[in-house]
Amino acid sequence: MPMYNEVLQSAKTERFKRIMELSNRKRREKANRFIVEGPQAVRELLQWMPSVVLDLYVAVDSTEPDAAFINPTIGQCAGLAMQAGAYVHKATVEVMHHVSGDCQGIFAIADLNQCRELMTGNEQADVLDDEQLDRGTARAPLIAAFWQVRDPGNAGTVIRSADAAGCECVVLVGDCVDVFNPKVIRSTTGSLFHLPILTMDESTFAQWCHERGMTLVAADVYGTKERSPRTLPVVLAQRTFAQQPTCVLFGNEARGLETGMLEQADDIVSIPIYGKAESLNLATSASIMLMSMAMSSHVETI
Amino acid sequence: MPMYNEVLQSAKTERFKRIMELSNRKRREKANRFIVEGPQAVRELLQWMPSVVLDLYVAVDSTEPDAAFINPTIGQCAGLAMQAGAYVHKATVEVMHHVSGDCQGIFAIADLNQCRELMTGNEQADVLDDEQLDRGTARAPLIAAFWQVRDPGNAGTVIRSADAAGCECVVLVGDCVDVFNPKVIRSTTGSLFHLPILTMDESTFAQWCHERGMTLVAADVYGTKERSPRTLPVVLAQRTFAQQPTCVLFGNEARGLETGMLEQADDIVSIPIYGKAESLNLATSASIMLMSMAMSSHVETI
Repeated sequence: MPMYNEVLQSAKTERFKRIMELSNRKRREKANRFIVEGPQAVRELLQWMPSVVLDLYVAVDSTEPDAAFINPTIGQCAGLAMQAGAYVHKATVEVMHHVSGDCQGIFAIADLNQCRELMTGNEQADVLDDEQLDRGTARAPLIAAFWQVRDPGNAGTVIRSADAAGCECVVLVGDCVDVFNPKVIRSTTGSLFHLPILTMDESTFAQWCHERGMTLVAADVYGTKERSPRTLPVVLAQRTFAQQPTCVLFGNEARGLETGMLEQADDIVSIPIYGKAESLNLATSASIMLMSMAMSSHVETI
Repeated sequence: MPMYNEVLQSAKTERFKRIMELSNRKRREKANRFIVEGPQAVRELLQWMPSVVLDLYVAVDSTEPDAAFINPTIGQCAGLAMQAGAYVHKATVEVMHHVSGDCQGIFAIADLNQCRELMTGNEQADVLDDEQLDRGTARAPLIAAFWQVRDPGNAGTVIRSADAAGCECVVLVGDCVDVFNPKVIRSTTGSLFHLPILTMDESTFAQWCHERGMTLVAADVYGTKERSPRTLPVVLAQRTFAQQPTCVLFGNEARGLETGMLEQADDIVSIPIYGKAESLNLATSASIMLMSMAMSSHVETI
């Protein structure tokens, strides 16, 4: 696909007005488009899901037809986008900044439904190999689930941590922030395009876990009347999660997990606090729990 | 000390003007005052450093002399402040919000130098008990150090994580954000008042560590030409940090650690990435590394 030589010099066009509306969920659904901002997220999108990219907008250093990209990363992305069959549009730094204050000179417009399909379609890709697991040469799948995560920055950060920990997928349970919210996408720094992101409601989630032979572990400080949480180091020492598929469920930023959700879990695990801090926030808790389980799992299979 | 019955109804007074200036570092130093905002941070300040609190401002539900506190937590803090000998001032919700948009109805003004003294004075409080350590009944001290941490939110979050991991103290090395920046204080959610926070420059830091018999571990993904990092799970398995005092040094948010800093370290450790994520941010890395070392250390001494 072509790169247009014309340098867009006005942000006040119908095209940019529609792009700016993509920060609104309803508008995204109606237009079947979403925006990916910043060099890191755009590069990951172009690398892992090139087929969903429709248009790439890049900042150039003048208004001349031969204007240069403002940095090499942006030039590299433009090349990838053209290979992928997307249209590349040049615009001035001012126009780019007006349309997306956080884009650092580059943003992409992509097909929402097509991305969603890719995101959920390969859910079954990482099937557990029981035989390898029995021999101790494979590690058991680890899945991260989040119930009612509402803050876009938190949602992005936990998806990034789940990716870093090598989780097979992320499940968003109940009423969560939309993952196509531009702030979520920025906070994932591209991890959104690395692993399947599933959404499901409370009534089907536990069943979904159990049908797949997964142990459902709730991350919670308090537990229920009947069941106190076990602490993470004890669970790490016992290592059941390294021998069988495990899904770790985290609660809402402010309210944690409701009793109804805790009762569905096979185990409740809390992170110990050794100092005087009262608590850890959701993003920190999820990073510590997922990564320490992943490290423990991988060490054993070395 | 008294609680004033008068309800402050105007934010446009000399008093509030001066309070609002405390977001500026130079003004804080000149006035020898700093502001602590929000119920959680104020409560921790009153609990752990009551003597430094000079004034407490709380939101009330009307302009009458018998106006009630807008919630019980605020009432409890007012009681603690009076016990501590601080002045308690009532103000309308609007005035409170105007003076500090993030205060959620409560902020305290405290003595900067006195707090700084308390913060650094008990540096030697947690002396390593060699004998206990030899018998394996004590865990070795863990210290968190940060070089050139610049973002207030990051600085606050890493101090909170160091507190949760039971670190003996936090060391800020080189040109870091001021810990009395209101955004740092908010992000610590009170941990700032829980453990000693020291500041020192690059030239004295390594010596300070070695004089105290500490192993200096640099957290870094790349290492130097001469020395590759070891991965965290390998280090956790080896457990040297559980037998001897360890200081873990983290680098700047964007640039990590410079070669000069890495060369001073006794060991270089990186967090493995198991998925496709390119990296973890500073706050996430620090939480994972400090907490996994703390958990590993505590498990052994159970």
